[in-house]
Amino acid sequence: MKIDIITIFPDFFTPFIETSIVKRATNQGIVTIKTHQLRDFSKRKHQYVDDTPYGGGRGMLLQFPPLYEAIKALKTENSMVILLSPQGQKYEQVTAKQLALSNHLILICGHYEGVDARIEDYIDLELSIGDYILTGGEIPAMIVADSVIRLLPGSIQEESQETDSLQQGWLKYPQYTKPESYLGHDVPEILRSGHHQNIEDWRQYQSIKRTYQKRPDLLKKIKLTAKEAEILEEIKKIGK
Amino acid sequence: MKIDIITIFPDFFTPFIETSIVKRATNQGIVTIKTHQLRDFSKRKHQYVDDTPYGGGRGMLLQFPPLYEAIKALKTENSMVILLSPQGQKYEQVTAKQLALSNHLILICGHYEGVDARIEDYIDLELSIGDYILTGGEIPAMIVADSVIRLLPGSIQEESQETDSLQQGWLKYPQYTKPESYLGHDVPEILRSGHHQNIEDWRQYQSIKRTYQKRPDLLKKIKLTAKEAEILEEIKKIGK
Repeated sequence: MKIDIITIFPDFFTPFIETSIVKRATNQGIVTIKTHQLRDFSKRKHQYVDDTPYGGGRGMLLQFPPLYEAIKALKTENSMVILLSPQGQKYEQVTAKQLALSNHLILICGHYEGVDARIEDYIDLELSIGDYILTGGEIPAMIVADSVIRLLPGSIQEESQETDSLQQGWLKYPQYTKPESYLGHDVPEILRSGHHQNIEDWRQYQSIKRTYQKRPDLLKKIKLTAKEAEILEEIKKIGK
Repeated sequence: MKIDIITIFPDFFTPFIETSIVKRATNQGIVTIKTHQLRDFSKRKHQYVDDTPYGGGRGMLLQFPPLYEAIKALKTENSMVILLSPQGQKYEQVTAKQLALSNHLILICGHYEGVDARIEDYIDLELSIGDYILTGGEIPAMIVADSVIRLLPGSIQEESQETDSLQQGWLKYPQYTKPESYLGHDVPEILRSGHHQNIEDWRQYQSIKRTYQKRPDLLKKIKLTAKEAEILEEIKKIGK
């Protein structure tokens, strides 16, 4: 997969590209990430790329021409052009999975004040990573790149993906690692019992309990098995 | 405000701290951001900080002792200790506003495989920035820092904040800037009319239309004025 990022802050991505899983995926040839300075596509003096809004209002908007020219220069038949913006559809894991099937993503980092709306004709997808306000689309572009790259075959152990939080819709059960005890805080005994079925049951119960307590909104999206429904009923009763 | 970030990738934050609004806020003394290498709080050989989960399962978890020691070293009376994790409550603008009132945030970057659950006793808030899976809590920590810093008095023009997307619950209307025309794409005439009331009406209509089309889920959270309700009815009719 190829990922091109259009931004006024290309240096912002340097450690992201050179750290951890992204670095490994790049070294293995699974992904190529390249940043592009939007200003290089400006024909204005000092390579300006923003200006005030028509009709009045505060702030500076990214202009249409440099964005258009940048997309034109990078786009091919197989490209998926994505604008990161607070007006976009909500980004979720299901979209990450779809994007992971693509050959070429072009990520456009919007500016916090906004982007000239004429660019929307050249965008395949407008994504918002959450309902909070950021200074720009750079961190959101990292979010999309990171979540997609880790789904690419070979980039992390596939089995690890399957047990991730949210992968099946449930929050993950509490996890513990060494040491067994530290300052009076102990690992639950059941996890040290070696009894696999009991451990599995405990984890399933905890997973359902956590989801119910912390993110009840997720329950609506999950198709419950008979056993899960039974556990959930039990948890609800105790909760009262 | 002081922001301490506990991470195994402190360099990841360098350009974030040195770019744009964050840099300006730091220079003006509005905020101090410092990263802390979690490994410095490890007493193990080679400063290891992770290990395999009790009870079996893939992946490596961040251990309890270094996290505990890091929090202990940084925490004061006024600190708000936040763990970034997929199990957390959903981060939204309302939480950003609450956090902006705090004096000291300690942001702990979880690892994608997980964190020893014993640390939860020392956490004030567990936050998830969205329903997608990332490799670690570093990008989420940036999200929280960025969204909070821009709300601090003096960091950006206050008037600009007020017209931001989502600030009133609505998506923002389409915006346009120079040039007036480019490759056959024109700025809507009304915005060049100079007629303020018409422009304001158009923007309100567009704002409601966008929200209805792109993020109908947001409508449930908004208390509609009589005028807004009327416009929404009109848009719904046209949509049919």
